[in-house]
Amino acid sequence: MARLVMKFGGTSVADIERIRNVARHVKREVDAGHDIAVVVSAMAGTTNQLVNWCREASILHDAREYDTVVASGEQVTSGLLAIVLQEMGVTARSWQGWQIPIYSDGAHAGAHIVGVNGEELIKRFRERHEVAVISGFQGIHKESGRITTFGRGGSDTSAVAIAAAIHADRCDIYTDVDGVYTTDPNVVEKAKRLEKVAFEEMLEMASLGAKVLQVRSVELAMQQKVRMFVRSSFEDPEKQKLDRRNEPIGTLICDEEEILESQVVTGIAFSKDDAQISIRRLADKPGIAASLFGPLAEANINVDMIVQNISADGFTDITFTVPAVDYERAKQALKTVQVAVGFKSMEGAADVGKVSIIGVGMRTHAGVAARAFKALADKSINIRAISTSEIKISILIDAAYTELAVRTLHSLYGLDR
Amino acid sequence: MARLVMKFGGTSVADIERIRNVARHVKREVDAGHDIAVVVSAMAGTTNQLVNWCREASILHDAREYDTVVASGEQVTSGLLAIVLQEMGVTARSWQGWQIPIYSDGAHAGAHIVGVNGEELIKRFRERHEVAVISGFQGIHKESGRITTFGRGGSDTSAVAIAAAIHADRCDIYTDVDGVYTTDPNVVEKAKRLEKVAFEEMLEMASLGAKVLQVRSVELAMQQKVRMFVRSSFEDPEKQKLDRRNEPIGTLICDEEEILESQVVTGIAFSKDDAQISIRRLADKPGIAASLFGPLAEANINVDMIVQNISADGFTDITFTVPAVDYERAKQALKTVQVAVGFKSMEGAADVGKVSIIGVGMRTHAGVAARAFKALADKSINIRAISTSEIKISILIDAAYTELAVRTLHSLYGLDR
Repeated sequence: MARLVMKFGGTSVADIERIRNVARHVKREVDAGHDIAVVVSAMAGTTNQLVNWCREASILHDAREYDTVVASGEQVTSGLLAIVLQEMGVTARSWQGWQIPIYSDGAHAGAHIVGVNGEELIKRFRERHEVAVISGFQGIHKESGRITTFGRGGSDTSAVAIAAAIHADRCDIYTDVDGVYTTDPNVVEKAKRLEKVAFEEMLEMASLGAKVLQVRSVELAMQQKVRMFVRSSFEDPEKQKLDRRNEPIGTLICDEEEILESQVVTGIAFSKDDAQISIRRLADKPGIAASLFGPLAEANINVDMIVQNISADGFTDITFTVPAVDYERAKQALKTVQVAVGFKSMEGAADVGKVSIIGVGMRTHAGVAARAFKALADKSINIRAISTSEIKISILIDAAYTELAVRTLHSLYGLDR
Repeated sequence: MARLVMKFGGTSVADIERIRNVARHVKREVDAGHDIAVVVSAMAGTTNQLVNWCREASILHDAREYDTVVASGEQVTSGLLAIVLQEMGVTARSWQGWQIPIYSDGAHAGAHIVGVNGEELIKRFRERHEVAVISGFQGIHKESGRITTFGRGGSDTSAVAIAAAIHADRCDIYTDVDGVYTTDPNVVEKAKRLEKVAFEEMLEMASLGAKVLQVRSVELAMQQKVRMFVRSSFEDPEKQKLDRRNEPIGTLICDEEEILESQVVTGIAFSKDDAQISIRRLADKPGIAASLFGPLAEANINVDMIVQNISADGFTDITFTVPAVDYERAKQALKTVQVAVGFKSMEGAADVGKVSIIGVGMRTHAGVAARAFKALADKSINIRAISTSEIKISILIDAAYTELAVRTLHSLYGLDR
């Protein structure tokens, strides 16, 4: 007997028939004797409708009222799922963020969870074996007593926070894929589902565009040591497939220590939505980077990969990426400060691809980067910039070569096998 | 400067444009210096959608979960109206039932309000002149902490309860009509809007089919001495028409004492959805009425007008009405107990009309009934049964004569003038 959190997104609860399907997944686990907390999103499409109403009401709407409006979507789903579960003979009740309570800070529309009280849920597991059906995405700001929401994908974070509060053995995230893959299967046919991924690796993968999980949920899981399990909601609830170890199919995101046969490289992530900007002959003095990136921040442009070469004769070059859609705006913003900041020229390209090699094993294995550079050179792929961290190597190339580079690296590190 | 509650129903907030129109009504009163609490229903159609989802989820759904689901509709409207008001420069915030809180009993789906805390609202009127935008129809059960709803039309009751809690000078109910009429203007062209109606009169009118207000809201208003004002939401918010006393157009529902020039008869109500059943030669012994009406209650059939004649030779006759749709079921139910209860025969008619003469002035004026009987006899209208209370005379006739009877009585008591 275990204690599990099960999280279902908007497409999984899009109508009553699908909610019934979710209930069957829940019942399977209840029948297996587990204590269950289910976390649900709003029915697909609902949140967009609510957000549009807020925009129609006013472009500059009060985020507190916005939260009140959009949080209603999850309230509907939680009530409906509780009804369906009861009809199936499962003891269940719905919980809103303010009822548990799930406390957050006051950063409305993108609030952070500061505490979850799991006592009553645990008490009800013990006394009545009652399933808790919890509205994701929402909490309450303790000081003001107002409803808060956690931003898009916030239900993942709700699920992890609840898992921590009730000391769950695992936090199952049901999605439209059956796990986390070594890379995008649409690009590399031989991409493999990973059985286990370390939190740190998942963080790099998520932020690099593997859109399975909200980054914040993984951060929280790492911090609270909550084991997350990504799995498919499309499987027949009663006829679950099991893997060779007799476990359900999916990817466990867990502490590095739990991964015994760790690979050097776990996955290859990539994105093609970036633009590159290079600043030439920038006076190399303290605060110069700030004076360059300040105007971009003011224009609300996200700067990602930043590479600064070693200074020569008092001048340096800086290369960085911005989202491709912001490319022209970024150049404009920099042009206006060229004289004040003092740099010679600016170059760029809107069609660049970023490929990242990820793996906690890199820490203890040298030569990972060198092998990548050689393999890419063998395919005549020109490297525009390189940036590395302890567990990741990111390489900027021409966008047209992205898929080729991904396939090349995927083979190189034995991920095809 | 006054303190007002303004209540708007589902059609008045059906989309953002109409919510904007509601906001203009609110702004008018705010600009006049009044403290305002607005009570809103769900956007038209929303509640039906939510109720249908609950039914689809399960025919026999948990009323606590049903309340959680349907209360979300008002939550959306309150947030949106607050946003629109803020955009117009009006300080405003939304309040859900549990935030105020509006405490109710635990009779989910038809809960009764047991207490409203108006302190924080009043504090905010004083400190910031802030408009309170309150979700109608919903409250919280103190013991369980769960969301409750008050049944269809429950927002009227919310409005009155809030008016009492904040000591409002008036509770304005915005509807699709500009007030309460002496009778249905579709039947009597000369029907007049009433300037004032006593609570007791309104109770008789509302329960007799003048569908302007929820009966419970009037009961609560009478008990809490809250002055209700029925008015039109279709008027141009900025170009309000005023009556000859320079007051807004509408009908004030208030204490009898506030009505100085009281009429003997205030209005003529009627309904044609009734069926009549007469039980002949019923043994006149204690408990006999209960044994007759018990089976009807069990069959969930509402019995309305009940007339029992004085007993002769140990037997009596009882006449009563039931909804026309329940006529056959009612006869069936009675037939099965005929021998056990002991009555000779049963007669009935599915096509009867009920006409009611209402007025608090009747208490001090004799002969009101006698005049009615004579006027109806002059038109050859046959009276099937009569039942009277202190402020009401109800007359059962053939359905075909209903309109004629209403027009006749409307003229008779000078309501045409």
